Amino acid sequence: MDNGDGPKKWGFQGNAELNASSISVRGVLNRVYANLDKDDKRPTIPLGRADPTEFPSYQTTRLAPDAVANAAFSYNFNCYAPTWAVAEYLSKDFPYQLSPDDVYLAAGCTQAIEIVVSVLARPNANILLPRPGYPQYEARASVSNLEARHFDLIPEKGWEVDLDSIEALADENTVAMVIINPSNPCGNIAETARKLGIFVISDEVYSHLAFGSNPFVPMGVFGSIVPVLTLGSISKRWIVPGWRLGWIVTCDPNGIFQQSGFVEGVKDYLNITSKPPTNMQGALTQILKHTKEDFFSKIINILREASDILYDRIKEIPCLICPHKPEGSMVAMVKLNLPLLEGIIDDVDFCMKLAKEESVIVLPGITVGLKNWLRISFAIEHSSLEDGLGRIKAFYHRHAKKE
Amino acid sequence: MDNGDGPKKWGFQGNAELNASSISVRGVLNRVYANLDKDDKRPTIPLGRADPTEFPSYQTTRLAPDAVANAAFSYNFNCYAPTWAVAEYLSKDFPYQLSPDDVYLAAGCTQAIEIVVSVLARPNANILLPRPGYPQYEARASVSNLEARHFDLIPEKGWEVDLDSIEALADENTVAMVIINPSNPCGNIAETARKLGIFVISDEVYSHLAFGSNPFVPMGVFGSIVPVLTLGSISKRWIVPGWRLGWIVTCDPNGIFQQSGFVEGVKDYLNITSKPPTNMQGALTQILKHTKEDFFSKIINILREASDILYDRIKEIPCLICPHKPEGSMVAMVKLNLPLLEGIIDDVDFCMKLAKEESVIVLPGITVGLKNWLRISFAIEHSSLEDGLGRIKAFYHRHAKKE
Repeated sequence: MDNGDGPKKWGFQGNAELNASSISVRGVLNRVYANLDKDDKRPTIPLGRADPTEFPSYQTTRLAPDAVANAAFSYNFNCYAPTWAVAEYLSKDFPYQLSPDDVYLAAGCTQAIEIVVSVLARPNANILLPRPGYPQYEARASVSNLEARHFDLIPEKGWEVDLDSIEALADENTVAMVIINPSNPCGNIAETARKLGIFVISDEVYSHLAFGSNPFVPMGVFGSIVPVLTLGSISKRWIVPGWRLGWIVTCDPNGIFQQSGFVEGVKDYLNITSKPPTNMQGALTQILKHTKEDFFSKIINILREASDILYDRIKEIPCLICPHKPEGSMVAMVKLNLPLLEGIIDDVDFCMKLAKEESVIVLPGITVGLKNWLRISFAIEHSSLEDGLGRIKAFYHRHAKKE
Repeated sequence: MDNGDGPKKWGFQGNAELNASSISVRGVLNRVYANLDKDDKRPTIPLGRADPTEFPSYQTTRLAPDAVANAAFSYNFNCYAPTWAVAEYLSKDFPYQLSPDDVYLAAGCTQAIEIVVSVLARPNANILLPRPGYPQYEARASVSNLEARHFDLIPEKGWEVDLDSIEALADENTVAMVIINPSNPCGNIAETARKLGIFVISDEVYSHLAFGSNPFVPMGVFGSIVPVLTLGSISKRWIVPGWRLGWIVTCDPNGIFQQSGFVEGVKDYLNITSKPPTNMQGALTQILKHTKEDFFSKIINILREASDILYDRIKEIPCLICPHKPEGSMVAMVKLNLPLLEGIIDDVDFCMKLAKEESVIVLPGITVGLKNWLRISFAIEHSSLEDGLGRIKAFYHRHAKKE
């Protein structure tokens, strides 16, 4: 309906520069998915996101939906936040005891990142982020006007943190550094951060999903050297990424987060933020306390086998190089050898054409900070993984440079 | 543990000015609760927040936890977002049909406000907010550096929007105005907003909770006059505020949200934001489609009776004036007649002393923009409401100015 007064001028006009979508995994994957060929009758192989929930082998433990149903039927919709259950769960691996007051629940790690970055942001401050990393940090820093500076992880050293580059980047306005843990070497990172006077944010969404030679070491173990914020969730270990149950934990026996005003800032921010649903909170205690060890080991074994498949098949694809066999998590970084390819400009081009021609979804490395790399999730059914890597091999042969 | 190098200087130092807690309902209520007298053995009467979940009369329909349990047991953790169910639910009251593409799910209205305000914010822009209102808008505007300007609701006219003050406040940088609906007169508000070229954000968290002479009219009905963003949730109508299931709906048959880039901004923001848990989303369709009318009418009747109790008892307390009998929602604004009181400075002082002396929690009006008013929730068990108002009366008599 038009009221007859012609086109209206509206006070709001979109401003593309303010958008953060170009650096979100979801935004990039949406564009890759949009390039799929609808006439390809083969199943689409989703290697772009570490979300195996649709695959039967990765079904969560029955205890998890039971716990949600029990919480719903309890009619206890004002449940006390189960922070003590999180403190107890994490303390098992710590040299000191966490208190429930150290724990703040969040709607998954996504919201945990939002809260932590929002509270740390202030004029002229900066934060050190890993490359490759997880673009949610960049996006939230951008929203909060917190400057992001990047340090490198070294592929040839098993993606070890380059401590020299951290020292070169930090200045008196640096508030924190982020590591994605499993990460090495944790003790040295703690000492460097202490020297620089910056907090460590340890993203442990993949905690315990380690199947290489190194065990998983929670960064909070070094909380007496440097104040550590541990971000975690049940998303990956319990294969329920959609459930949005995560946490921020202050691992800091010296009370520096309290003294510096950081804790107060978190409490203030939580006052204006959505909490996880109470009935989901109600399920968390059961899930953390009573999940059987054999569920965890079953998932670890499936992931180990999947990573073996990935590593072996990648070796058969000349244009791809996996410099370090994955030892944990659900994703691997793979380098593109572009000179071996004809008519492929970069990683984005590779992924767009791969989606169109082979119905295989892979994340362009630029999304996580590494141009002309790929991030491949191996957390799917083994047969699908074989199928997807076979299609990538066929894609390579079709696009290989003729000699 | 100290490493022997003395007190460290940390890059992060808290900055109280950046905190938004002073304008959050949660933050203010936390301070009022902290003033309770632990030696008072009477039950605390919670009139500060519209959250009746702990009272048996307000128990949600059995269908709601059933739906959550069913969704959990379905193991369908990648469920398609039930946007069509929300579109169908709202369209029943509309002169046109909403599409699922008009609907964006949010983790309750709290997150819906975050998303909308974040997307509207840009340098030098401003937004018009009602007084009294809901401080979440101010808090989020502050976080996003969006200037908040306030227009008045007129108590003597049933809290009608003062349209003249809106015209006086708006300028070319005004992006939108917020109304809390039920609100009057909706048609005139739409015409005024159209004339000014600003969007209308209609907060309909209390939709359908009307029990006075005026029926509830969704603002989206006027979407062809002015683009309307309807914010809603199941929190109040289904008495499940902790479940965090809400929505943003573009009520805009002329497609102005699309053309202006607003829709793209929302999609971009959603890419970096936590969604409601998938298993809660899975429950939403059942809840919206199958809840029986007798549950809704039972709740409406309980609220009507509670508002009658409140209105009658307030008349017996000389220092309190209720200029307009509540016709909807779960809260009433009540004016303090301070000259009748001895030694009470303002609304905050009143609420702090009331908590300490009578274990009754009431929200200071300043929290919602009206100094020396009180916001009283009547959505509690009738017997508790009588008890609480009796204690407020006793409090008045103890503090009444001697003539």
